[in-house]
Amino acid sequence: MSSGDSVVARLVFQRCAKAKLVLTEGEPKDESDFVLINEGLLVFIAFLGDITPKLQKLVNVICTTQICEKDGKYVSILDFPCDVILIPQFCLGGRLKGKKFQYHSIVSKEEAERYFNLINDGCSNFAALHSHWASSGHRIYAGTYGIRQNLIVHIRALCLSVFFGYIEMIEITANDRLGKKVRVKCNPTDTIGDLKKLIAAQTGTKWDRIILKKWYNVYKDPVTLADYEIKDGMNLELYYK
Amino acid sequence: MSSGDSVVARLVFQRCAKAKLVLTEGEPKDESDFVLINEGLLVFIAFLGDITPKLQKLVNVICTTQICEKDGKYVSILDFPCDVILIPQFCLGGRLKGKKFQYHSIVSKEEAERYFNLINDGCSNFAALHSHWASSGHRIYAGTYGIRQNLIVHIRALCLSVFFGYIEMIEITANDRLGKKVRVKCNPTDTIGDLKKLIAAQTGTKWDRIILKKWYNVYKDPVTLADYEIKDGMNLELYYK
Repeated sequence: MSSGDSVVARLVFQRCAKAKLVLTEGEPKDESDFVLINEGLLVFIAFLGDITPKLQKLVNVICTTQICEKDGKYVSILDFPCDVILIPQFCLGGRLKGKKFQYHSIVSKEEAERYFNLINDGCSNFAALHSHWASSGHRIYAGTYGIRQNLIVHIRALCLSVFFGYIEMIEITANDRLGKKVRVKCNPTDTIGDLKKLIAAQTGTKWDRIILKKWYNVYKDPVTLADYEIKDGMNLELYYK
Repeated sequence: MSSGDSVVARLVFQRCAKAKLVLTEGEPKDESDFVLINEGLLVFIAFLGDITPKLQKLVNVICTTQICEKDGKYVSILDFPCDVILIPQFCLGGRLKGKKFQYHSIVSKEEAERYFNLINDGCSNFAALHSHWASSGHRIYAGTYGIRQNLIVHIRALCLSVFFGYIEMIEITANDRLGKKVRVKCNPTDTIGDLKKLIAAQTGTKWDRIILKKWYNVYKDPVTLADYEIKDGMNLELYYK
């Protein structure tokens, strides 16, 4: 599951007939302490990277994916129209290792809260532009970030869908000993061979003449950057055959 | 998310404080028409490949992953101990393409039903071996395969986890024009370069002298089998430089 590590967000969609989410820690006291929706969509979200370059895409996925069933057809929440509750859920960012889920890949609590607010604002603004939805009185609700999520869900026809959203681009620099510096953007799932082709496009050399090293380690063409743990901002040594 | 395509099963774990799953199509009439559990675990499952070689591993994941919270520690359903409901959920096998989830990767309804029963029997048998769990009166329940899942879930501290389980091995044959035939097992995430090394180990030639072709298509080393859509049972042409 290496590709799960390099995406910026994991989303789980759960259609519901009715849902009630508590917005406070502890038991709700009055109506302002919870959200109650009827037919609608729950979106559980975890963040594993910087979503800002992909924010609009993620908003589109939430607002325009045809996931609600109406008269035997699949339509978006805007066309249904219905309510949505966005629920922060860091557990979703976990990766099973042995008998435990590990959470090394998720972003910090502060970052995740900021991204969650960006998604929430993005969806609300996007949905508001659709007059059919906006005039229907429906809303995009959001759970409270950082509390234990306490909810009750009624499901009539379960449809649980996952979306692992967008591979994070990383920037790699390569330096030869003569002062030439090349900067390329690539995906962690790219291989060293792919990276060499991107470098070759800038240096004008043939890609198969390029050697990439770090200390005494010579990187091999078929292996991915993720497998070599080559991360954003890393600097590699560039040689020629 | 190419790796999502080559796994044999997708599981979503949802801890619950209480859950009620209807076992019949339509409204339940009496107690035998639904399952009701208190604190426990819901496991939603979709099948994308032949799970039989990985059945015991999947059973272990369900029964022994430390996913339930007890006195601030994470323990398995066996150590908690608690009930489990296994819920067939083909939607989970979907892949977002444009605005729609597509379900090309899931196995047939008959296969999925068979795998679901294997998982259910496997978990029940495995759990029964644990005297602490067995004597606690808890059970592994299963939803009814093939109906619309109708359920009510009460969640006190949401913990929704995903597990995409086990890459399916595929078998590739390579034939040279002289009647030599090589059969290798590999992963869809392997590159052509990896495949050449596996072939080289059998033919005794150097891997970088191998050329793999299909019709006029020469396969390139850094590309994965999945990206070339090379599937189980495919036959490639083997040449030497």
